[in-house]
Amino acid sequence: MGTIVVTGSGSGIGAATTARLRADGHTVIGVDLRGAEIEADLGTPEGRAHAVAEITERSSGVINGFVPCAGISGLPGRPASLLVSVNYFGTVELLAALRPLLAAGAPSAAVAISSNSTTCQPGYSMDLVNACLTGDEGAARVIGDQGDSINAYPATKNAVAKWVRRNAVLPEWAGAGITLNAIAPGMIATPMVQEGMDDPSIRPGMEMFEATIAMGGAGAPEQIAGLLAFLLGPDARFFCGSVIFCDGGTDASFRANDWPALWKPGA
Amino acid sequence: MGTIVVTGSGSGIGAATTARLRADGHTVIGVDLRGAEIEADLGTPEGRAHAVAEITERSSGVINGFVPCAGISGLPGRPASLLVSVNYFGTVELLAALRPLLAAGAPSAAVAISSNSTTCQPGYSMDLVNACLTGDEGAARVIGDQGDSINAYPATKNAVAKWVRRNAVLPEWAGAGITLNAIAPGMIATPMVQEGMDDPSIRPGMEMFEATIAMGGAGAPEQIAGLLAFLLGPDARFFCGSVIFCDGGTDASFRANDWPALWKPGA
Repeated sequence: MGTIVVTGSGSGIGAATTARLRADGHTVIGVDLRGAEIEADLGTPEGRAHAVAEITERSSGVINGFVPCAGISGLPGRPASLLVSVNYFGTVELLAALRPLLAAGAPSAAVAISSNSTTCQPGYSMDLVNACLTGDEGAARVIGDQGDSINAYPATKNAVAKWVRRNAVLPEWAGAGITLNAIAPGMIATPMVQEGMDDPSIRPGMEMFEATIAMGGAGAPEQIAGLLAFLLGPDARFFCGSVIFCDGGTDASFRANDWPALWKPGA
Repeated sequence: MGTIVVTGSGSGIGAATTARLRADGHTVIGVDLRGAEIEADLGTPEGRAHAVAEITERSSGVINGFVPCAGISGLPGRPASLLVSVNYFGTVELLAALRPLLAAGAPSAAVAISSNSTTCQPGYSMDLVNACLTGDEGAARVIGDQGDSINAYPATKNAVAKWVRRNAVLPEWAGAGITLNAIAPGMIATPMVQEGMDDPSIRPGMEMFEATIAMGGAGAPEQIAGLLAFLLGPDARFFCGSVIFCDGGTDASFRANDWPALWKPGA
């Protein structure tokens, strides 16, 4: 049993994960815009600094797990820059800031939330992915707003996956006894997805996407909570830099032949 | 609790998985060349037919899980055709033959064993991968023996992953309440890996490979057994066609930027 921080703990995957981890006997420190132990806006540097300070105080600087679930979907009228700040910087800046607390609590684990839209939603901007990965939030927000938030969503989630894979193997993470991995859920029945379903311009595309799910429809948040609980636990200590797809079959439907792919070094 | 079939139950990941599943309260029907409930050579059509008949009788035609662990590594002097028959056909022909038993036991799960060599060992033959996937064992064995077994290993494991991804989403699998997924372990401390370490011509390459493992060295079979137990269990019912890497960081070290990759339909 340990102390685990969950952002976005107020709804969807974050709420289900918080409930699951508490049922398993862990102490969860929840972070959300409102209605959580720590109220903070992870879409701003000030909000992130506030969250980190509060987490550090409440945990006495020692945590055993971190699950940054806070994230928002693309919607008409919602600026892409908001997704850049919440989904990407709200995830990776907290990972970096909480890394010393995870090192103090090692063996420990962090699991970020990517998405199967990274491989299954065509047409997003790799320039935005790469802009996020440079770490310049202002520049990435500008590039994001050259497009819309619906295409920004998979770009921010691809950047999260890449950040995880690049950092997980480093001495500061693997070498410090911290497993760092990501999951890539498919469509999960959450308020975030419902927000899209409620938008008449988005609903048809989402229904088409849901129809691709071989397991019969959107997943339950509790299924993803179960996966996260596993990845935080003692049976998952050999995971490092993995992006674990759990999507009811969408990625396998569209990309069966694309991964695993033969390595051609230098190609 | 249910009835789960494990091939290769006599050693390595298969033995650890058998022990774990029994400790968790499941009934395991083990299959191996010798020293298991069912003795069979999965490298021949006759051996596979014998195993399937015995499994069907012992299970009364109803199973809840299947883990085809039987597999052999590439070694100097070992023909590639043996890996084609054991690793690929010994896996997928049993998956196909046991599918009706899994359907009878649904909700049920099958998890095949791929390998991170599929993405991390350059230079293997995609012709061999594709020859396996056509399902013509004789033809695939001929193509395999145009190369050596060290390069055949990742090819057979890539073909296993592709077979899983192509089939998992079909009505016969997902539609019948059977989750079908694969795992891609990295180097695990098993007799199979030790066999390579004991060969002076292979040892240097394997030591170099082991040095790439950010988590500090080869994994324990018990870690992979824990992953398999999770994937067979109630928290993993939204997995479908995933290939779950668990390799201590090797794939993230070599392929961080290669997956997840933007989909370019028709490209």
